[in-house]
Amino acid sequence: MKSNNKSRSIPIIAFLFMFMIIGCKAQATTVHVDKKTVSAGDHPKLILTKAGVESIRQELGKVPLFDTSLKNVKEDVDKEIAQGIDTPIPKDFSGGYTHLRHKQNFLTLKMAGILYQLLEDEKYAVYVRDMLFQYEAMYKDLPVHPKERSYARGKLFWQCLNDSNWLVYVSQAYDCVYDYLSQKEREQLEKNLFRPFADFISIENPQFYNRVHNHSTWGNAAVGMIGLVMNDDELIQRALYGIKDAKIDIQAKDNDGGLIYTEGKAGFLANVDDPFSPEGYYTEGPYYQRYAMYPFLIFAQGLHNVRPDIKIFEYKDSVLLKSVNALINLSDADGEFFPLNDGQKGMSYYSREVITAVDISYKFGGKNPQLLSIAEKQGHVLLDDSGLAVAIGIREGKAKPFVKKSINLTDGSDGKQGGVGILRYGNEDLTLVFKYAAQGLSHGHYDKLSFSMFEKGDELLQDYGLARFVNIGQKGGGNYLKENQSYAKQSIAHNTLIQNEVSHFKGEYEIGSKHHSELYFFDTANSEVQVVSTIEKNAYPGTEIHRTMAMIKSANFEKPFVLDIMKIKSDSENQYDLPFHFMGQMIEVNFENTAPATLNVLGKDNGYQHLWLEGQGKPVSDNAKLLWLNAGKFYTLTSTVNKTDEFLFTRIGANDPDFNLRRDAAFIIRRKKSKNTIFVSVIEPHGSYSTVSELALNSNSNIAEVKVRYDDENYTALTIEDVEGNLQLFILSNEDASQTKEHKLKIDDKEYRWTGPYHYSNLNK
Amino acid sequence: MKSNNKSRSIPIIAFLFMFMIIGCKAQATTVHVDKKTVSAGDHPKLILTKAGVESIRQELGKVPLFDTSLKNVKEDVDKEIAQGIDTPIPKDFSGGYTHLRHKQNFLTLKMAGILYQLLEDEKYAVYVRDMLFQYEAMYKDLPVHPKERSYARGKLFWQCLNDSNWLVYVSQAYDCVYDYLSQKEREQLEKNLFRPFADFISIENPQFYNRVHNHSTWGNAAVGMIGLVMNDDELIQRALYGIKDAKIDIQAKDNDGGLIYTEGKAGFLANVDDPFSPEGYYTEGPYYQRYAMYPFLIFAQGLHNVRPDIKIFEYKDSVLLKSVNALINLSDADGEFFPLNDGQKGMSYYSREVITAVDISYKFGGKNPQLLSIAEKQGHVLLDDSGLAVAIGIREGKAKPFVKKSINLTDGSDGKQGGVGILRYGNEDLTLVFKYAAQGLSHGHYDKLSFSMFEKGDELLQDYGLARFVNIGQKGGGNYLKENQSYAKQSIAHNTLIQNEVSHFKGEYEIGSKHHSELYFFDTANSEVQVVSTIEKNAYPGTEIHRTMAMIKSANFEKPFVLDIMKIKSDSENQYDLPFHFMGQMIEVNFENTAPATLNVLGKDNGYQHLWLEGQGKPVSDNAKLLWLNAGKFYTLTSTVNKTDEFLFTRIGANDPDFNLRRDAAFIIRRKKSKNTIFVSVIEPHGSYSTVSELALNSNSNIAEVKVRYDDENYTALTIEDVEGNLQLFILSNEDASQTKEHKLKIDDKEYRWTGPYHYSNLNK
Repeated sequence: MKSNNKSRSIPIIAFLFMFMIIGCKAQATTVHVDKKTVSAGDHPKLILTKAGVESIRQELGKVPLFDTSLKNVKEDVDKEIAQGIDTPIPKDFSGGYTHLRHKQNFLTLKMAGILYQLLEDEKYAVYVRDMLFQYEAMYKDLPVHPKERSYARGKLFWQCLNDSNWLVYVSQAYDCVYDYLSQKEREQLEKNLFRPFADFISIENPQFYNRVHNHSTWGNAAVGMIGLVMNDDELIQRALYGIKDAKIDIQAKDNDGGLIYTEGKAGFLANVDDPFSPEGYYTEGPYYQRYAMYPFLIFAQGLHNVRPDIKIFEYKDSVLLKSVNALINLSDADGEFFPLNDGQKGMSYYSREVITAVDISYKFGGKNPQLLSIAEKQGHVLLDDSGLAVAIGIREGKAKPFVKKSINLTDGSDGKQGGVGILRYGNEDLTLVFKYAAQGLSHGHYDKLSFSMFEKGDELLQDYGLARFVNIGQKGGGNYLKENQSYAKQSIAHNTLIQNEVSHFKGEYEIGSKHHSELYFFDTANSEVQVVSTIEKNAYPGTEIHRTMAMIKSANFEKPFVLDIMKIKSDSENQYDLPFHFMGQMIEVNFENTAPATLNVLGKDNGYQHLWLEGQGKPVSDNAKLLWLNAGKFYTLTSTVNKTDEFLFTRIGANDPDFNLRRDAAFIIRRKKSKNTIFVSVIEPHGSYSTVSELALNSNSNIAEVKVRYDDENYTALTIEDVEGNLQLFILSNEDASQTKEHKLKIDDKEYRWTGPYHYSNLNK
Repeated sequence: MKSNNKSRSIPIIAFLFMFMIIGCKAQATTVHVDKKTVSAGDHPKLILTKAGVESIRQELGKVPLFDTSLKNVKEDVDKEIAQGIDTPIPKDFSGGYTHLRHKQNFLTLKMAGILYQLLEDEKYAVYVRDMLFQYEAMYKDLPVHPKERSYARGKLFWQCLNDSNWLVYVSQAYDCVYDYLSQKEREQLEKNLFRPFADFISIENPQFYNRVHNHSTWGNAAVGMIGLVMNDDELIQRALYGIKDAKIDIQAKDNDGGLIYTEGKAGFLANVDDPFSPEGYYTEGPYYQRYAMYPFLIFAQGLHNVRPDIKIFEYKDSVLLKSVNALINLSDADGEFFPLNDGQKGMSYYSREVITAVDISYKFGGKNPQLLSIAEKQGHVLLDDSGLAVAIGIREGKAKPFVKKSINLTDGSDGKQGGVGILRYGNEDLTLVFKYAAQGLSHGHYDKLSFSMFEKGDELLQDYGLARFVNIGQKGGGNYLKENQSYAKQSIAHNTLIQNEVSHFKGEYEIGSKHHSELYFFDTANSEVQVVSTIEKNAYPGTEIHRTMAMIKSANFEKPFVLDIMKIKSDSENQYDLPFHFMGQMIEVNFENTAPATLNVLGKDNGYQHLWLEGQGKPVSDNAKLLWLNAGKFYTLTSTVNKTDEFLFTRIGANDPDFNLRRDAAFIIRRKKSKNTIFVSVIEPHGSYSTVSELALNSNSNIAEVKVRYDDENYTALTIEDVEGNLQLFILSNEDASQTKEHKLKIDDKEYRWTGPYHYSNLNK
């Protein structure tokens, strides 16, 4: 890490300061501050508490996970201290040096503050104080950041968002050294640094601060936390309720294309109210839920400690605590979050934000022993009361496995704006993620009724995620790339239906934000036949898409499979594309694939301009079959097709001279000139392959034929015939999802009777 | 696993047989067999020995790794026994049911035989006997396998090779139940099954049996092992020395295009003599070395036990034992073998063949404690004397880490046909695999002076490996695909020089087999500057390629880097392509990349017909820079270029309608109309990226410029300047590789003096 000359000279000055301060200290602790109730001597109180610190000191050396975490943090901080303080003049985007340095600084400040409290070693307080004064000296005259891209430029960073990150962390550091500093020092810091900092990210940037958005949550928490430390009620009120009468342009958009104006809703409580559904699903998706988790929970912990009267953890039926459970359920077997909407693949519950979330929700949410097993995997706890509670719980052997089950997470603050249905079989042996949610604010993608699938931690059918290399400077400053808009957000980048090569809602945020899909039913009562069924009426006006996905485990099949019924009603003739973004290597198809001599782009826009047409084929039977191999497992897609359907193999990469997109494949079933139609597919995991034993086990599909047996407005019936000739029958009631409704239907002269929205039976030979 | 009706009926018959046999047993054990020295009662003797079995029985329950291995094997065998015996009529290729079933059978037979000996539970002997008789009943009238593709069709399998596998394993099973069977049973089995089986794969298929080739090694071992069990000296002689006066067509080729005739060299000893270099490098490469390891070592163990007079483990200066050390050194940090020549990626020292090799070479090769750490990782030992020795060694805490160092493995039976130079830094932090070997028989690729690189277990610049999905039936029966010849073997599929878009030796096996590259020098005395330098004069007649690669760790660089000097002398004007098959995502280049509107193939043949031209650029400075990200690590290639050079981004996939090839990328520097020329490149690993912390550390190249300072027939000198302005100088003597030769050279008015083939110095500011 580089260090400029300025920073190298600091320690000597700091050394002189230190003597002055130590000399003043006795006096400082007795002086009463000119504020309502606060007196030096009652800190720390925000995240660490005086009582908590006492307990921790007594347990030091006796709680393995806490001790390890402390040791690791101490090593990191000692390394930073040895390197000297550097607070460079801000100039870079996310991937650049000044950005990374200031980010490292706030992380280190917080940790150093904690170490001072826990280890009672003054060098950490000195370090915090010295760096704070370096920031204080710089901040007074600091202009807004020179990079002009953001709708809300920060001062230390290119956007207010990162400045808010800084204050959330630094508030905690300040709280830890508050009593160590003299009154004069505190006044100087508060007057020149903290108060103007809080004002800048709020009053001076209402377009950033006064929204319902993860950005604003960080801003609110930042203002609130420094307010709690400073006992500044005005800041606390501003944090909880936003800025009254802030002037915001109703048409203005942020850098992601999201509308800024949120109808007067603002402040931390509004941010808890609005984006969280009653089960704790966060409308932007798990990647941003993870990101927002930190300010939500750390500020909540601060409020709980300093302002218990607000009862923040009980707010909205304890949604903050529930959201941690929801978030963990939005991960695959490796703990990686499903990349719904703008989500970076590989982000997981091992991130520092989720460590925070797990510890706090364990301590303040009834000590759920399943959270302890997540904390064990994380291998790190917070160095505060909540982390201690977790580490002690683990020490005492209370941890239980976190069991992820099938779950329907509604979207919308009232839980009435669609949702995300997750079907799981066994111990995450197979996971289906089915999205029928609201737009997801500015980070939303245009992918109504899309799905992705995982076998354990491996994606077999992917959601592309975001087109961004977060914090990698060479790629557009580490920010969103234009391909995020031109490809990743578009419908064709997802496993959903695309009509006439246009994205849902024409890819327009204003339209998409008005609508959400509707749940038809979600039924996981029978673990061997779990069904989610949803309807989308607005993505393409005049067209209704009804998609039903069932995860079925049949005794005749080695593994569970997923049945996908995509029923379309339209008042016009359209071209329908049904893509399957399979991961891995194509092994076999049941039709002739023609590889072109030159590769052409598949289309002009809406994401199609990024796809090369790598192969083409036509049906040779009533089913299309595609078999592929991924991560040592085989998968077969079997789809009912019409004679005139076209099969397209595509690969991402066209119009991408900077290689901003991954070169991933897809298989698309294209049906032209159709009004009402139906696609029925089975996605069937089977077998395995090892490059070490070189054994290919069960490498063939077990399905002989998928056939639609009946299809009208009221009912759709189909059979899945396996290679032994056994039949499975699935009938869906298209018009009545009632669990108690009785149905009867005659198919091929045989009458079937059942109750509820679907019928499933095994017609074995 | 399927089971046919025939197999289901077997157990009842077997049950009846069992009583008959038990009734006969006392008599059988006293009858002397009509052969020279053998009597019932002296088995097992081949791999298990009577004394060994006694020791093992005494240690059961006391040696954890042995006990676990036994438990796992018992579970597997019990599962097979419960399923019933199935010996289907052969019909499938590698990936098909009959192939897999017969393969599973021979593996199970061997294990069941061992279990009978160790556990003294007769059910295992009954199982072996019953299955052997089922094979006996079938084999008598069995025609050659219906699949006609092989140059040497087997009976149970589509090629004699797999039939030989069967006999190698089944000999061991027979040895274990030999004393259990009656004389009559043995005679029946030997007369109708084993002897005809051995004759079929040898006398009836001399084109398979009488070669120097891994196929023949299996054949030799199979014949020899059954000969040892049956005490049939004729078979033993045939195994050791081949078939005298076998008629083989001198022009005939095998399915891989390899010449069959090997100038009268044949038999097991010839197969030890010829393909192994003195250090134990096997000329076909590590993938086939691993495969051949099993028959080499298991037959050697058998010979050692039954015919100690042959002193097989001392043969050719103990080359069989040395080869195990060489093989382990041909793996990356994850234990995966470098995919030189035809090699399937992912094959590793966890394979059963290497478990065998490690155990046997530990027991019979001086008990090297470093082998114990490999065995610990393997987590499994052989259920015989050698496995017991390993498990006891581990129990006693004798294991030491296996330290892989830089190593030069010569090729050719006399060690004079080129070789493979491996440079390593640290604990496999960086590994360079540099190939200047002989052709490698029929599995050889046309890639003189090619290289690949690994950071720990991750390839950053790849060797494509083979184009085959071993045992995956849907892909050409699991056999070699035509793309192996049309792409994977071609020079362009490797990181080496291609002249005029033609592969080395025109891609012709007959020419390639006549030549090998020459070592100029290999010097790893200084761990901070390790150099391998080699020359190729025959790949392109009239052109000499001298490639020098140095792995350098400079204090000014975070990680070691590799310097690549490719110096070309030619008597004609040519086009030179220098490809870098980088793995992962391109992050940045220092030139404008133009992405075409349609993708065209790069060339007509020699592998070029499989490459799409994905992008093109021209130099904007004296260096081309390419920065990419792979598996969380950054890499930069910095190459000196001429103004008229062209940069090509390619992607595999053209003319591949069956998706037999991976869609991997390459960056090619193309220089047209050049005679003598030089390419100097630095491959620089740096930094890291985590999708969890989202920190991009050290994501920029540390190199400001690579510059050729001097270049003539005698010397090449270059400097590497880092971003701080520090210079590193590297001078190569092009004509004299002597370690004692004194040199002097004036560059830019400064004279440098040194001794030996190269000079390296740091000219720090």
